[in-house]
Amino acid sequence: MAPPSSEEPAAAQAAGAGAISKVLVVIAMQTEALPLVTRFQLVEAAADESIFPKGAPWTRYHGDYKGLHIDLVWPGKDPVLGVDSVGTVSAALVTYASIQLLKPDLIINAGTAGGFKARGAGIGDVFLASDVAFHDRRIPIPVFDSYGIGARKTFETPNIVKELNFKVGKLSTGDSLDMSPHDETAILSNEATVKDMEGAAVAYVADLFSTPAIFVKAVTDIVDGEKPTAEEFLQNLISVTMALDQAVMQVVDFISGKCISDL
Amino acid sequence: MAPPSSEEPAAAQAAGAGAISKVLVVIAMQTEALPLVTRFQLVEAAADESIFPKGAPWTRYHGDYKGLHIDLVWPGKDPVLGVDSVGTVSAALVTYASIQLLKPDLIINAGTAGGFKARGAGIGDVFLASDVAFHDRRIPIPVFDSYGIGARKTFETPNIVKELNFKVGKLSTGDSLDMSPHDETAILSNEATVKDMEGAAVAYVADLFSTPAIFVKAVTDIVDGEKPTAEEFLQNLISVTMALDQAVMQVVDFISGKCISDL
Repeated sequence: MAPPSSEEPAAAQAAGAGAISKVLVVIAMQTEALPLVTRFQLVEAAADESIFPKGAPWTRYHGDYKGLHIDLVWPGKDPVLGVDSVGTVSAALVTYASIQLLKPDLIINAGTAGGFKARGAGIGDVFLASDVAFHDRRIPIPVFDSYGIGARKTFETPNIVKELNFKVGKLSTGDSLDMSPHDETAILSNEATVKDMEGAAVAYVADLFSTPAIFVKAVTDIVDGEKPTAEEFLQNLISVTMALDQAVMQVVDFISGKCISDL
Repeated sequence: MAPPSSEEPAAAQAAGAGAISKVLVVIAMQTEALPLVTRFQLVEAAADESIFPKGAPWTRYHGDYKGLHIDLVWPGKDPVLGVDSVGTVSAALVTYASIQLLKPDLIINAGTAGGFKARGAGIGDVFLASDVAFHDRRIPIPVFDSYGIGARKTFETPNIVKELNFKVGKLSTGDSLDMSPHDETAILSNEATVKDMEGAAVAYVADLFSTPAIFVKAVTDIVDGEKPTAEEFLQNLISVTMALDQAVMQVVDFISGKCISDL
């Protein structure tokens, strides 16, 4: 992996080079990923064409769709426990490796999320995140506190928002599915409408390497409601994944033939 | 970066290939890293010999010491905020990139930590971690709960423990410097004596790629004591870094000329 020292950042390249050609979709769970694999008629990379190093459980599907090359990656199953490798560490790693190896023009991080009804979220709603931040990295030392929160604006896509009529809200990320009182305080402070377990980590890595990234999050559970999160999440995962699937396809259809600056 | 598909895992290679030759030291903070850079007379990799991709703030120092090639990496300063890029995401990324690019025989993750006096920790004590786990990844769904905690035994080094007379204890990792009640419950459940912000993430990545890793942690603050963590941490950081520095040198001196199986 040679450092791309003579190249412009991907964002600048894409903006200058005309139509978007390579889209990287980053998804945390297999249940969320497979409907999109079918929808875009992607094929799983065979063992002998794996771009990831031996040992990495990361899985890649790829294919061409309406003039775009789509790579869809998910962090795969934990090698020992067999469950999806959710959370910030795995998401950051697979995003980093994919940016280096695939040099996408645009990243779409798609997934399910918890929503706050007090801020207008309902089950099945699809949000585009205007901002991301972490809610479980408390470092009470000046400046380190801001680093921990890691708040950043996402890549702005006013035309997608206008055309596709998605809700827009701030996204807060943490490595727990539940929400402790400390998390809740931080999420309120982040002014978040949706809560996930990967977004801010994907955004951090995308920003380091100047790759524009957008965040499509579908609400599986109401965090400030009465049902326990884990139960509600599992109950709605399949049906909400269909809404997510539909939304990502709309975004990709919109992107087809456009430049980064048209989004 | 070609996948090392035809190669054995690094651990097997090292065990089979005689003496350890390449050691990767992963450190989170510049204050912790610089005394070791001086001690081992390492030099900073120049811009034109950077192995890391453009955009990554990660910094590498390298040099030869008593028959070993030492690479010391730290995640560098946040590009926007200018503080050390502490925490699990940055540590996982720099560990991953370094394993792929440097193929170390052994990783030493060295750093400062909080200690629990109830479990025998005192300021300035140096611990080798026998086990690592996360305390802020609560996923209350069967099997996902274990994945979140991510408990694993570290590479066993009975001869280092015996020879160098370090304390041994379990290490618990989270992205916050402070400790919420939820964190405390999880840390107790992890039976941890020391608490840091990177170890379990470094261990996760090292395990994926079968690279033996050891964890040397020096206690800057007593978590179950009376002083506020941030204040005590900053007060003791410099002096405890000297103890850490000394301990890492003892470990490296011990490793020199030995095989992985001698540790």
